[in-house]
Amino acid sequence: MTAKNSKPRRKNGISETKEHLSFIPLGGLGEIGKNMYVLEYNDEIIVIDSGLKFPDSELPGIDYIVPDISYLEENREKILAIIITHGHEDHTGGLPYVLPRLNVPIYGTQLTLGLIKNKLQDDLPGFKPKTFEVRAGDVIKIGSFTIRFIAVAHSIPDGVALSIDTPLGRIVHTGDFKLDSTPVDGRVTEYGAFAEEGDKGVMLLCSDSTNAERKGFTQSERIISGTLDQLYRTYRTKRIIISSFASNVHRIQQVADVSARFNRKLAFLGRSMIRNVELARELGYLKIDSKMIIQIEESWKYSDNQLVIVTTGSQGEPFSGLVTMSRGENKAIDLGEHDVVFLLASVIPGNEKLVNNTINRLFAQGCEVVYEKDRQIHVSGHASSEELKIIMNIVRPQYFVPIHGEYKHMVRHSQLAQEVGIAQRNIFLMTNGDILTFTRNSPPKKQGHVQAGAVIVDGNAAGSIKSEVMKERREIAEDGVLVVAASVDDKGNLLAPVAIETQGVFISDDTKQVFNELYAASERAIQELAGKRANIDTLKKTIKARVRDVLRKRNSSFAVVLPVISVKHSGYYDNNNFFEKDFF
Amino acid sequence: MTAKNSKPRRKNGISETKEHLSFIPLGGLGEIGKNMYVLEYNDEIIVIDSGLKFPDSELPGIDYIVPDISYLEENREKILAIIITHGHEDHTGGLPYVLPRLNVPIYGTQLTLGLIKNKLQDDLPGFKPKTFEVRAGDVIKIGSFTIRFIAVAHSIPDGVALSIDTPLGRIVHTGDFKLDSTPVDGRVTEYGAFAEEGDKGVMLLCSDSTNAERKGFTQSERIISGTLDQLYRTYRTKRIIISSFASNVHRIQQVADVSARFNRKLAFLGRSMIRNVELARELGYLKIDSKMIIQIEESWKYSDNQLVIVTTGSQGEPFSGLVTMSRGENKAIDLGEHDVVFLLASVIPGNEKLVNNTINRLFAQGCEVVYEKDRQIHVSGHASSEELKIIMNIVRPQYFVPIHGEYKHMVRHSQLAQEVGIAQRNIFLMTNGDILTFTRNSPPKKQGHVQAGAVIVDGNAAGSIKSEVMKERREIAEDGVLVVAASVDDKGNLLAPVAIETQGVFISDDTKQVFNELYAASERAIQELAGKRANIDTLKKTIKARVRDVLRKRNSSFAVVLPVISVKHSGYYDNNNFFEKDFF
Repeated sequence: MTAKNSKPRRKNGISETKEHLSFIPLGGLGEIGKNMYVLEYNDEIIVIDSGLKFPDSELPGIDYIVPDISYLEENREKILAIIITHGHEDHTGGLPYVLPRLNVPIYGTQLTLGLIKNKLQDDLPGFKPKTFEVRAGDVIKIGSFTIRFIAVAHSIPDGVALSIDTPLGRIVHTGDFKLDSTPVDGRVTEYGAFAEEGDKGVMLLCSDSTNAERKGFTQSERIISGTLDQLYRTYRTKRIIISSFASNVHRIQQVADVSARFNRKLAFLGRSMIRNVELARELGYLKIDSKMIIQIEESWKYSDNQLVIVTTGSQGEPFSGLVTMSRGENKAIDLGEHDVVFLLASVIPGNEKLVNNTINRLFAQGCEVVYEKDRQIHVSGHASSEELKIIMNIVRPQYFVPIHGEYKHMVRHSQLAQEVGIAQRNIFLMTNGDILTFTRNSPPKKQGHVQAGAVIVDGNAAGSIKSEVMKERREIAEDGVLVVAASVDDKGNLLAPVAIETQGVFISDDTKQVFNELYAASERAIQELAGKRANIDTLKKTIKARVRDVLRKRNSSFAVVLPVISVKHSGYYDNNNFFEKDFF
Repeated sequence: MTAKNSKPRRKNGISETKEHLSFIPLGGLGEIGKNMYVLEYNDEIIVIDSGLKFPDSELPGIDYIVPDISYLEENREKILAIIITHGHEDHTGGLPYVLPRLNVPIYGTQLTLGLIKNKLQDDLPGFKPKTFEVRAGDVIKIGSFTIRFIAVAHSIPDGVALSIDTPLGRIVHTGDFKLDSTPVDGRVTEYGAFAEEGDKGVMLLCSDSTNAERKGFTQSERIISGTLDQLYRTYRTKRIIISSFASNVHRIQQVADVSARFNRKLAFLGRSMIRNVELARELGYLKIDSKMIIQIEESWKYSDNQLVIVTTGSQGEPFSGLVTMSRGENKAIDLGEHDVVFLLASVIPGNEKLVNNTINRLFAQGCEVVYEKDRQIHVSGHASSEELKIIMNIVRPQYFVPIHGEYKHMVRHSQLAQEVGIAQRNIFLMTNGDILTFTRNSPPKKQGHVQAGAVIVDGNAAGSIKSEVMKERREIAEDGVLVVAASVDDKGNLLAPVAIETQGVFISDDTKQVFNELYAASERAIQELAGKRANIDTLKKTIKARVRDVLRKRNSSFAVVLPVISVKHSGYYDNNNFFEKDFF
């Protein structure tokens, strides 16, 4: 039998013609962010979530990161739907990148779709997504997948878990959740629905690992009311400024309720805060009497103890309301000794420095600041270890994949799974791109890998940066760049003295002397190669090596050396690019 | 009266001839790190501590930061001594930079001087510092200053506070301290000595603000033994790897003691760990039976439950023992399922990401990891708010300056001072470079400012980087650099085609087309100026503007544009530098 006669096969080695169900995470494993999970039954694909991740200091100048969706682009015609579990950016923020490439229908609950539409209006003006609104409790059929939406409590309203029935078995995907017994909106995580699915039999559970490290139970969001009540009493004479996540509607509701009890008006500040409040009020997720809300511009009319300003900036975002206030640069609000700021949010890992700087600057403005070190002013939206064990006991899955977490969270979560009796061999620790495949007659196998990784989006949602560019940025960020420019004729003879410029370079020895040596070394390199039919690459390499030698000898700098050579060809005249690989 | 006849005055406006005592922090205020405090009585200066700070992601490629000591260099002849309170790098690490500039005697306790000598051997080989060893309890006279050294408990042995008697009043400087009632070495913070000084009357207290945000008391270092005991039982079959600060001799002592009880041998890994253990054992601060210590190379001879490896890397330092292990790149130790790692340290703000990545990688090696989220495996070396109030009540100072902390810590500390009855007007919130001056007949005044700030040290201890270089690095780190190189004759005519190279640049549109426009725009700029007696700067500016126009029009990139021009002068031949401002 020749290769020609064998069955069509995917790259990952699973026969395409054999009945199979594959779970393929494209983002969200080994990280908090850019969640995107693929479920593939034969030639039908559904995608769960399409998130982004914000970059850290290792990716300077970058706007955000989305999953590499090459696998989906290659299998575009198989994709039936993208299902979004809730409206947070790590689950929705990739859509402006993904939708122009894969224009497939989006399924989500009312608030989730409302937030997505707002987002697309900004990032893809004119783009009309195909959306289908669902409610918790709904059961819909998409191709061979039957999907039940189950209400879960989280730090944004209207979140859902999914129970997905397929011809090869049932998969429960928790989305982001906690088991808050007293949620602010009364919408408790539906234990009953999870139990029903468990009773029917669940093949695979994919569950939120974010807080797998935390012992016990995550506190109820409702405790924030109590803390606010105390704080409003303590600071009853002061103007109150509150910073919170713009999407945490429950928390804003509690701020509004406590403010009403203390006869304070509310002014909202920051574009995303104003817009989310508007949307959530319009859709009925946020209940605030219109008489309570004032425009920030009118705030001067109210005395300190009549006012609460609710603003963005809890993560130290550079242009947010709170940060501009901390710099004394906000157009509407000047802070001073009569103010108190409550930071009603925890610091997302990676933002520590931004938040800390903001707090220090707020103190320097003379106001009082209440933040996490002092009080219980934030509760997490994710289930802690006891809750995770409860869900596993309710769902009683045959197989388990911890999702939505760094590697350490996934390891802890798999340890919890073993504690409740799931055998180690039935737990799969996966990484983005891994393929876990279920077939009818044999146990599931983690084998093969699709292309996965990060696409870096810089400025333009339609573009992406290769990691090579980021590597180059990191290199020059460390030690600067030293440019050696030279023009040569087509024999390689120097046409003018070599020019050297630096950016961000520190020469520790006597600078003038070092530069003279650098000029001499570069020119010598060029002269040695002149007339020798060396190509431009060789010339660049030689210059680079000689310049490095000088810097090393002078113990001077680790700058990136960038030779830039232009060639004047006799007879004609063109760009350097053209000669890149030519002999001269 | 003319200016000529007025008394000699310092820049800060205090008359030099009038009797005065000034407290001038040069580092350590508004930050954790690079502690350096100046005490000046008339024309005599003593300096307290000489520390460094490690850079964060905003200073890529930098080794460390020390205070700007211009003020000390200008007043070199007045300086009598540098007194070091303890051996941590944020109090000693600036000495390799400072000593070649101000070769003054250093006073410190035995371990502190031992650590300093080790450090200078590396960074200033051949340099012989003038050192004077003191002990807690000693009283020495340096010029008009009479200094009493008071034992304090901290996370390194042999730390001292200072009570400094001057003709204008007594100053108590706490150094870094906590009130550990059961310190591992039995050397309790000397309440009695502080009380005696309080009874004699203290004019100014300068006290450690690091933990002013924390309520209650900092736990005793000794609790670590109990935690270790439990952990050794839990993981009795595994090989144990412990990472801790190399300078925390008390913690290493506890590891050694518990290891002895469990019949495990100790192997040390990491240069600073090995060297500090050696020094501390030699000087008697660390008591470990030689028979317990093995070389890391012999560790294969021992079974897992007979061995403890103590290593550096608790802050995720790139080349440390723990980090190389986590990458599977350590020459001596391969980690696996039979290993457990205890991270016996808290994460220093700024290192969150490095530590987190290390933990994730350790899990990926298959070993178990115990870190701060799980257990009480670290206690701070700094006093919490109740301890800070106790010291204030014992010392009962007239005036108070919170030191050693970020702005938020200093604000909290000053609130604590008010709680114990120090009037707000007697508390001075200072910043680096501020001058607080005491005179005989009037209350102290914070007025004037000496030059203060950060000197960035990169590679070579003797050098320093200007902030301009760092600004350049940050710029290119954000968006990369685009180099336009051209050679012109002395009339400004192009000698060869313009060459363009990029580093870390992302062009979002059609790259080839954008580059063609960039070539054309640069060449047009040069041609327009040819023969017009423009100078090089004008030429560069014009190229820059035209290139920016193209990038902006194409919505392409915010890269730093760096034109590099070489000029061929008829008749002679020299470096571009030389023509920098010349007309052509």
